[in-house]
Amino acid sequence: MTATTQNLTGAAHAIEAAAWLKTFADALGCNDTEAAANCFHEESYWRDLVAFTWNIKTLEGRDQIAQMLEACNATTAPASWQLESDPTVTDGVIDAWLTFTTNVGRGKGRLRLRDGKAWQFFTALQELTGHEEKKGFTRDMGVDHGAHKDRTTWLQRRQREQSDLGHTTQPYVLIIGGGQGGIGIAARLRRLNVPSIVVERNHNAGDSWRNRYDSLTLHDPVWFDHMPYVPFPDHWPIYTPKDQMGDWLEMYVKIMELNYWTSTECTHAEYDVASNTWCVDLVRDGQPITLRPTHLILATGMSGFPNTPQIPGAETFTGDIMHSSKFRSAAPYTGKHAVVLGSNNSAHDVCHDLWEHDAASVTMVQRSHTTVTRSGGGNRANDGGNYSEGAVASGITTDIADLITASEINALAPIARKQATDDARTVNADFYARLEASGFLLDFGPDGTGIGMKYARRGSGYYIDVGASELVINGDIKLHTRVTIDSIQPHTVTLTDGTELPADLIVYATGYGNMIQWAEQLISTEVGDRVGKVWGLGSNTQYDPGPWEGELRNMWKPTHQPNLWFHGGNLAESRNYSRYLALQLKARLENIPTPVYGIPPVQQTQ
Amino acid sequence: MTATTQNLTGAAHAIEAAAWLKTFADALGCNDTEAAANCFHEESYWRDLVAFTWNIKTLEGRDQIAQMLEACNATTAPASWQLESDPTVTDGVIDAWLTFTTNVGRGKGRLRLRDGKAWQFFTALQELTGHEEKKGFTRDMGVDHGAHKDRTTWLQRRQREQSDLGHTTQPYVLIIGGGQGGIGIAARLRRLNVPSIVVERNHNAGDSWRNRYDSLTLHDPVWFDHMPYVPFPDHWPIYTPKDQMGDWLEMYVKIMELNYWTSTECTHAEYDVASNTWCVDLVRDGQPITLRPTHLILATGMSGFPNTPQIPGAETFTGDIMHSSKFRSAAPYTGKHAVVLGSNNSAHDVCHDLWEHDAASVTMVQRSHTTVTRSGGGNRANDGGNYSEGAVASGITTDIADLITASEINALAPIARKQATDDARTVNADFYARLEASGFLLDFGPDGTGIGMKYARRGSGYYIDVGASELVINGDIKLHTRVTIDSIQPHTVTLTDGTELPADLIVYATGYGNMIQWAEQLISTEVGDRVGKVWGLGSNTQYDPGPWEGELRNMWKPTHQPNLWFHGGNLAESRNYSRYLALQLKARLENIPTPVYGIPPVQQTQ
Repeated sequence: MTATTQNLTGAAHAIEAAAWLKTFADALGCNDTEAAANCFHEESYWRDLVAFTWNIKTLEGRDQIAQMLEACNATTAPASWQLESDPTVTDGVIDAWLTFTTNVGRGKGRLRLRDGKAWQFFTALQELTGHEEKKGFTRDMGVDHGAHKDRTTWLQRRQREQSDLGHTTQPYVLIIGGGQGGIGIAARLRRLNVPSIVVERNHNAGDSWRNRYDSLTLHDPVWFDHMPYVPFPDHWPIYTPKDQMGDWLEMYVKIMELNYWTSTECTHAEYDVASNTWCVDLVRDGQPITLRPTHLILATGMSGFPNTPQIPGAETFTGDIMHSSKFRSAAPYTGKHAVVLGSNNSAHDVCHDLWEHDAASVTMVQRSHTTVTRSGGGNRANDGGNYSEGAVASGITTDIADLITASEINALAPIARKQATDDARTVNADFYARLEASGFLLDFGPDGTGIGMKYARRGSGYYIDVGASELVINGDIKLHTRVTIDSIQPHTVTLTDGTELPADLIVYATGYGNMIQWAEQLISTEVGDRVGKVWGLGSNTQYDPGPWEGELRNMWKPTHQPNLWFHGGNLAESRNYSRYLALQLKARLENIPTPVYGIPPVQQTQ
Repeated sequence: MTATTQNLTGAAHAIEAAAWLKTFADALGCNDTEAAANCFHEESYWRDLVAFTWNIKTLEGRDQIAQMLEACNATTAPASWQLESDPTVTDGVIDAWLTFTTNVGRGKGRLRLRDGKAWQFFTALQELTGHEEKKGFTRDMGVDHGAHKDRTTWLQRRQREQSDLGHTTQPYVLIIGGGQGGIGIAARLRRLNVPSIVVERNHNAGDSWRNRYDSLTLHDPVWFDHMPYVPFPDHWPIYTPKDQMGDWLEMYVKIMELNYWTSTECTHAEYDVASNTWCVDLVRDGQPITLRPTHLILATGMSGFPNTPQIPGAETFTGDIMHSSKFRSAAPYTGKHAVVLGSNNSAHDVCHDLWEHDAASVTMVQRSHTTVTRSGGGNRANDGGNYSEGAVASGITTDIADLITASEINALAPIARKQATDDARTVNADFYARLEASGFLLDFGPDGTGIGMKYARRGSGYYIDVGASELVINGDIKLHTRVTIDSIQPHTVTLTDGTELPADLIVYATGYGNMIQWAEQLISTEVGDRVGKVWGLGSNTQYDPGPWEGELRNMWKPTHQPNLWFHGGNLAESRNYSRYLALQLKARLENIPTPVYGIPPVQQTQ
């Protein structure tokens, strides 16, 4: 194609996208929701992040879209639809980014147009008009020039806030859990001027990382892992070591001026229906204190509630028994026999560490199939898509990458994931063949979609290989499969097939419970039942029973319990969705109407 | 001009710049230095930052350029000259950025071409080939994937470095002074893998700011003040309050993994000619320790060595007497009589604070003329040139702004400064008239070039007005001019005109000595004499005696004392020139030849 032909074709696509947008905008403008819905294919998807629905919601099919518009369009009053840049075209799909306004804010969107109708559509609120973050041109002065007898310094204001908030004034939001999730949402709320407190049971910010096992590094490469507003400097390593991450978070809490209470445990929380506030009992530095926030965010982590099996004879064991979350280092186990129950990330990392520290034997007890994916390593710099050094070099900022990621439709994810998994299986065919030959129970998910869908559906069931798989393959890590530990004796464990193994150390790498358990423990089982399962899509695969919901359950959005929110996910998700959670809370603080559309029915945990 | 005409004209300029560059490069390539010098006007300037001269040096005129090339071109072996982007044209001067290589590194440059010959030329080494900073695509992995029995963690490596460096191994560079200057150069050296230690007498990084008076904020707006590598987030205030700056620096030291020794005083340093290393005696946490670094950087600050006058009767005074550097807050002086000696920044800030805290009287004793410039305030967001929010929005990064700033010729600075000062005098004519009517001794420098040249020439003699001038104008701050304090009595001070003033507080806002005093005190007067005056251009104006040097004396470049360096300046200068100081030290560490051209004769302090 010549340059001129390309230009003309590009112009034609831009005209087509603009024409669609005009038709759609006009229909919405006169609230002709049927005409607006007719801009979509019958099989189509609209993902909305709190712009129309005040929810995180994917409408699937023209009928659902029409219903949503019927309920939401008049109150949303979308307007000023504009193409943001020239559309691109792939496989006949015109792909265009756009901007729009609502009656309360400004949004961004993405249109994927096929044969004249929308196939995928995405709308996301970006800021609330009149309540924008103060940054760049609108940043604070930092000082009042002139002569003022009532001058206060930054330090005085900061100290006053710290002594008042939670004592003479109440935070609007209380965040339980001060890991990267709690810290990130607190930073967003800070920039939006929403009074908030984070409580963290550890002594220092960052300890949730420092207290993990010595050899831990982040599993995602650096481009995924930036906190909001303050990116890592460009020498930061690809895989951040856990203590370095701890230091970064500690720094971040201070620099972002968060109200962060360390050595503070939440003992109980109760919702007061009369006042629509929470009564939260805390123990801070050993002293009880009660807060009355309007909103409660549980940012306690997907890995916060250890599953610990009860195995007969455990009390007679003379060695060490611990859940993997308590495993710190293999150094004390040189020359010792170790048995690790489980076969996912933690199990592999613990076995890996034990072998490197010359344990006498390292045995992995694999109960069920595990997906193994190979860490991209350094080459992720180039092939990590929108989160990579190549993306940085080509101007794709973290904010842009986050928006692209948010615009993808969960229902369509398995198609791309299957393809990526198939490709990886081809590239790594020899590796996978050797791993299976070792007896390892390898899978790629029930539909061959690999780690990505396992993570979304159940948050577990995989290992990102950073070296342990070769130890499994060559037998340095011994493997027993399709069994579990039947009983424990003073110096041995007995597996369900009768095998008896010598043991000085038993590690339960048996994963974590559902986040709702935190609500059950801290609030009540009644509230736990009201909210139901947290995480999972309803894919009707193992550990992710239906019905299909199409979004992660109860994450970053309203639940059936008023003023209770769940925040978490990996660093990239926490960063991405904290933006939308913060906007939902800011709107409520400012008494902006937030009519929520389509809270799904509750899915009980088993 | 039509778009097409503009394009053609632009192309013509690009061709002219490229033609000049080819002629120049060819001449250098065959070491025809006369031909190369002939590419310059007789009146022309070439500023070089360690690319050709291993010095910070401006050659003024064709003859000096020819001499430098004669001495440096063959060893530099410059090559691969290329225009970096399309030139711009202003007032007939073609302005082009370019890149080049030397035998040891890569550089950037700027050409300003008038009537076919170079009027201004700029060359700056940017990195040493094979010793580039590891960043972006070349960043560390952070973890060794695979199974390794000798694995160490980031924390172990960091702890080992901290316990070894200065004990079992010696730093290559020792930096005395851990304010923003010392911290910034340490960060540059860290990224270049040059083993370094910073020693700081305060208990915590950032205390050099925290310990100053409560009302202090940075005088330069935020766009000037970024530290290298980790910019402030975009909500950071325009004028950073001093305690917030302290927190930022403390964070920065930790995140950049600097070897930063707090509570450490240097008591003596001596150069050992036999080993070409320093023997430096320190007291760290009360314990003596001796280090043997190869290089010593004094980053003790222009404001580190207080000038304290000896005034008869001071010992009889019953109130408080202090140098402004020790003044913390006016809060204790409500209802008290205060006399402040001096009329520059500190004097005004102290008087301002005293008035805001309701001192009974505030008197400024002005000995000589002072330049007053009005703080731009919020509007600096737009009109701050290359350091402004507007610059950020148009893609001028801090690194680009720094390069532009570095490319300016000191000898030409007074022309631009005079114009800017004239403009400001016009805009603020009423303000200045009222200030002079109050009796205040106002000046704009001996040649009307204002604050910019006063700063470069003597580092003092000005006030950036943030509110105190109105208090002077309206008499809230009382003024006595052309006098000083003659004597002090128990409850009063007597001025040289006989006036007696009641006093409960006397503040000497009498400025600071020359940085060379630190070398005299810590090393010897002999070394002080060998190095001579630090700072100043040799402009033959008050406090900046000639001969003309054209560069700040002894700053960031080799001195007459081997392996002794001076680092400092405001945040913007420290950031900008730390790059070139770090390259000079890295080259020496790697035994790259660094033949220094043109160290000027010594200028003794008075």
